[in-house]
Amino acid sequence: MIVILKKSITPDEIDALVNRIRAFGVDAQISEGTGQTVIGLIGDTTKVDRCSLQANKYVERVMLVQEPFKRANRRFKEENSVINISNKTTVGASALTMIAGPCSVESEEQIVGIAKEVKRLGATALRGGAFKPRTSPYSFQGLELEGLELLKIARAETGLPIVTEIMSTSMIDKFVDDVDVIQVGARNMQNFDLLKQLGTIDKPILLKRGLAATIEEWLMSAEYIMSGGNDNVILCERGIRTIETFTRNTLDVSAIPAVKKLSHLPVIVDPSHAAGMAWMVDPLSKAAIAVGADGLIIEVHNDPANALCDGQQSIKPEEFGILVDKLRVIASVVDREIK
Amino acid sequence: MIVILKKSITPDEIDALVNRIRAFGVDAQISEGTGQTVIGLIGDTTKVDRCSLQANKYVERVMLVQEPFKRANRRFKEENSVINISNKTTVGASALTMIAGPCSVESEEQIVGIAKEVKRLGATALRGGAFKPRTSPYSFQGLELEGLELLKIARAETGLPIVTEIMSTSMIDKFVDDVDVIQVGARNMQNFDLLKQLGTIDKPILLKRGLAATIEEWLMSAEYIMSGGNDNVILCERGIRTIETFTRNTLDVSAIPAVKKLSHLPVIVDPSHAAGMAWMVDPLSKAAIAVGADGLIIEVHNDPANALCDGQQSIKPEEFGILVDKLRVIASVVDREIK
Amino acid sequence: MIVILKKSITPDEIDALVNRIRAFGVDAQISEGTGQTVIGLIGDTTKVDRCSLQANKYVERVMLVQEPFKRANRRFKEENSVINISNKTTVGASALTMIAGPCSVESEEQIVGIAKEVKRLGATALRGGAFKPRTSPYSFQGLELEGLELLKIARAETGLPIVTEIMSTSMIDKFVDDVDVIQVGARNMQNFDLLKQLGTIDKPILLKRGLAATIEEWLMSAEYIMSGGNDNVILCERGIRTIETFTRNTLDVSAIPAVKKLSHLPVIVDPSHAAGMAWMVDPLSKAAIAVGADGLIIEVHNDPANALCDGQQSIKPEEFGILVDKLRVIASVVDREIK
Amino acid sequence: MIVILKKSITPDEIDALVNRIRAFGVDAQISEGTGQTVIGLIGDTTKVDRCSLQANKYVERVMLVQEPFKRANRRFKEENSVINISNKTTVGASALTMIAGPCSVESEEQIVGIAKEVKRLGATALRGGAFKPRTSPYSFQGLELEGLELLKIARAETGLPIVTEIMSTSMIDKFVDDVDVIQVGARNMQNFDLLKQLGTIDKPILLKRGLAATIEEWLMSAEYIMSGGNDNVILCERGIRTIETFTRNTLDVSAIPAVKKLSHLPVIVDPSHAAGMAWMVDPLSKAAIAVGADGLIIEVHNDPANALCDGQQSIKPEEFGILVDKLRVIASVVDREIK
Repeated sequence: MIVILKKSITPDEIDALVNRIRAFGVDAQISEGTGQTVIGLIGDTTKVDRCSLQANKYVERVMLVQEPFKRANRRFKEENSVINISNKTTVGASALTMIAGPCSVESEEQIVGIAKEVKRLGATALRGGAFKPRTSPYSFQGLELEGLELLKIARAETGLPIVTEIMSTSMIDKFVDDVDVIQVGARNMQNFDLLKQLGTIDKPILLKRGLAATIEEWLMSAEYIMSGGNDNVILCERGIRTIETFTRNTLDVSAIPAVKKLSHLPVIVDPSHAAGMAWMVDPLSKAAIAVGADGLIIEVHNDPANALCDGQQSIKPEEFGILVDKLRVIASVVDREIK
Repeated sequence: MIVILKKSITPDEIDALVNRIRAFGVDAQISEGTGQTVIGLIGDTTKVDRCSLQANKYVERVMLVQEPFKRANRRFKEENSVINISNKTTVGASALTMIAGPCSVESEEQIVGIAKEVKRLGATALRGGAFKPRTSPYSFQGLELEGLELLKIARAETGLPIVTEIMSTSMIDKFVDDVDVIQVGARNMQNFDLLKQLGTIDKPILLKRGLAATIEEWLMSAEYIMSGGNDNVILCERGIRTIETFTRNTLDVSAIPAVKKLSHLPVIVDPSHAAGMAWMVDPLSKAAIAVGADGLIIEVHNDPANALCDGQQSIKPEEFGILVDKLRVIASVVDREIK
Repeated sequence: MIVILKKSITPDEIDALVNRIRAFGVDAQISEGTGQTVIGLIGDTTKVDRCSLQANKYVERVMLVQEPFKRANRRFKEENSVINISNKTTVGASALTMIAGPCSVESEEQIVGIAKEVKRLGATALRGGAFKPRTSPYSFQGLELEGLELLKIARAETGLPIVTEIMSTSMIDKFVDDVDVIQVGARNMQNFDLLKQLGTIDKPILLKRGLAATIEEWLMSAEYIMSGGNDNVILCERGIRTIETFTRNTLDVSAIPAVKKLSHLPVIVDPSHAAGMAWMVDPLSKAAIAVGADGLIIEVHNDPANALCDGQQSIKPEEFGILVDKLRVIASVVDREIK
Repeated sequence: MIVILKKSITPDEIDALVNRIRAFGVDAQISEGTGQTVIGLIGDTTKVDRCSLQANKYVERVMLVQEPFKRANRRFKEENSVINISNKTTVGASALTMIAGPCSVESEEQIVGIAKEVKRLGATALRGGAFKPRTSPYSFQGLELEGLELLKIARAETGLPIVTEIMSTSMIDKFVDDVDVIQVGARNMQNFDLLKQLGTIDKPILLKRGLAATIEEWLMSAEYIMSGGNDNVILCERGIRTIETFTRNTLDVSAIPAVKKLSHLPVIVDPSHAAGMAWMVDPLSKAAIAVGADGLIIEVHNDPANALCDGQQSIKPEEFGILVDKLRVIASVVDREIK
């Protein structure tokens, strides 16, 4: 961290500021130039409160040199984290993770049927929404607890681990019992109350990136979970909101190599929510694997036109199968494989 | 709502689609042009599931004609809503609401001292954070329950109603008992679990706009609270994230007249979080009142450089007093007053 | 400028890098911390090529401490610049500049009629497009040279200086002869060929901010003009493109105090293009003056519904008159006046 | 195009509006619902002035149904356009176009050396800047005319067609004589004067997407060139500006399938400018080919740390060679090849 001082500062005030900085447990080194005096902070600056320094009337600006996250940081753990999501499925190892399933769980027949099909075609986990975050209070909100029960039946029938979104802290115990990966949606990425409580369990968390979250903020949200003791965080890029309106969001493929450089956590891509259009799932999935993602989470529905939600972005099982075959070739180029 | 069809659609498939649309309780009118067939939906389309129409393989695009919110919509209630936040303070009436106070409650002396000062200088409500949403888990998280107690003392001493942020649904009963206005922060604007539960109480809710939320989404979040039965929603513009990085966020002053046109709900402005710089609070506050806001929520701290958070964006009580005097003149231009 | 080095750098390579930095005419000061070595650059860093430093394989990051613009910088000229745009009209002095007129010049009757009306109602300069930048090649492109002639007639009849947009470097001589302020549109803000050539004349330039330009880039474009010798630059904020789609662009009122802090150049606001809606011109104009702008440029048309372009954002002369009267009061609050 | 009317409109005023619409050469069909009357425009609406309709006081909103571009539109030309850029090189056919070379031409030795190397390693065209658009007037502006001469020498030695950026309309004749593909930079994407003049020649134009341009605006800029008679337009996605700051821009890979759906024009990707970091060129190039781009334009420099500009984003020839070999495999997945 570097603190740039105003010209008006006096030597006494520099001393006071240096003492204040040292109180955060870091050392301070002063550089006096012709135009500007700067203080360099040396040591672990993750616990220095940047804002309080910025509030000092002799401080012009505070600039970060190191990332403010620690447990999620690759500087502190060089090798890739590999997260177990079932006794035979991992995220972050050489084998790519292919999560597929409908936006919403609608019925036993639907979820079990889709689960069997996607498993046969290459999926290694099953997604399905039981509690649905909808922009409108008048839209279908999911089957809720009944949806969870149906997911469990689908898991029992196929062996696929299940991934589903949590909307409320009151559901954490239930989710710990019932599901394999707890998804935190984009709109809850900075629901700090939820993140803190998810830090106290050891179930894998799939943390989606917020619509306007920087990569750094996303990793800070991972840090919230990890600082509570739960290191099983899987990141998920799902598009950010930009000036482009043709697509619902803009898939930020650069975020994948960026996360890989900054962090040891695995990162997957959701091509369905990124574009919001079924016909874009195929090319975006290819791009995601080519750019280095650890896997995909794709909406697959047997009858998209009659889906209770998000049908416009769901592909059919047969399309999923064709896609997976193409992805195998791309995976080989980036030294990965699809089992 | 207008549904634009693909050229490949057959008359039978148009019939099937029309039946499906009518099942949502609205009527459908078909327009056949030379190039394109479109179906116009007539009636209350707030309950039509746009996504499921979009998923139909003969549908090219679905376009909204009317806003998807209803209880928050000025079409359904022409006169401005006025919300009582104490037995003598309202939001949305002719008198502007001036909410002031520190980012965080730090001690009894601090909060009571500031409360007395800002009241004397023109504030009509007291803000102060007890539970703080911080990007980093290592930053100060607020005094929590102790903070609430100190706010109550400040209220008892000054009579100012208190406004503070809720972070967790588990705190709702406590907040209903203790505070006058429950703030939902920008990062929780689409925490639908929280919004739904706040819909079941009748305490005023201050709903901040999310960092990347459109005005429509913000009003849809208000609709979540209102659809549960709580019509006491106060909106708060606090800046959106844009390509500009000099300011922390970009205060969207256009959102004020936009909200006034689309909705009957009151809307205030937070100039402190928008810019993130104390010296910008003065000009942005003037702009906010000039553009038609119903009030302001401003961070005021007696000793910004030693504030436990957000000191860089807090102004001092004397600066607040000078500002309020200037705002009185601007208020008169827009037919408002500051008591 | 601060150069953060990778841990892998050797003392010899540090020496080589320091020599390279000194070749740019600045001094280098090395700070060695426990984790990281940084080099501070001391002196005038505007001519240091940041990119070439960043390309060095031992450099992790380069951070700017000072702004990269010089002639536009308030550090180098403390007092506000005041630009003469006619023998009795200035921009940047205590009196606000009120530029009004139609989007496009359409006929002698139209432009002279509007000019007379807006002058009577408080305008101090006349705007009117002769060459129009239109997104579509099939839209009306302006009366071009004939439009310039009509503007000159309007000036002769009213004495108002004329402001109009240049689209091509081939027109510079003509514009120097004919107009009082040469406008550079948002889409040409980084048309460096045009900027360089405008630097060689001494006519005032109204430089609109680009749709996605940061304040720093905008000031760098001013610097292009000024570095050529033409210091008569007037900045114009006209909204940036953001995630909000209700308004055509988002008026960035914070940019006004930001520019005032960073630069000595005057800055005005265009509320018509910002929102793209006539009914928003009134509140946004009030916000602009309240926040500290040096003036406004407003589209005024006698018959907006029949305007050849941009009618949806034009106000009528009588609305302009009412607005100006309100603005006089707001101006007094910020120690300005409207003559 | 659909025109949504206000409730206050009278039958006479509807008639007047319909007549006005018909004057644009299209037909109008009225739909009266319970809540809202809408007029559907039938026929070629590309020449209807949307803004003038929007300015009508009885019009609430105008919504586009069809794209406003015509010659660039796939509806009007179904098969992919293939552009010849030399007697043996095309863009848009089955073979991918690999354009490589330095940011700036620096010397004969440099440009000829790099040209030979990249040709050997798989490049099919040579890029190199002679006129450089730089944010700062104090940065290196290119070798200008001398740079063009050196590019011609490199072409003579290798046979590679040359691609270089035009900054000024005064250079068009020179570029027509000297270069094979004229590049229009992102900052000039809406320099309509330049676009119009490039429409009058028949040299291939590489049109980069603006930093805040929507896909529709980008295609409208292509339409400017094409409406003048030059159909040889190659689009180039190079990242848009978003809220993410880790990368310089955000590569919008979704734009590739979007352009392919909306238009018949070829589209390539510039991974070097998108991220602004050399180490991201490899993964982003893979993503670009996987998502369906017609080729790449990559900055390759023999000595990035000593490049006169943009060294931080240039890769070395040997890295380019390794990348091309990987891309061959990905190309096969999307039914393309690299010669």
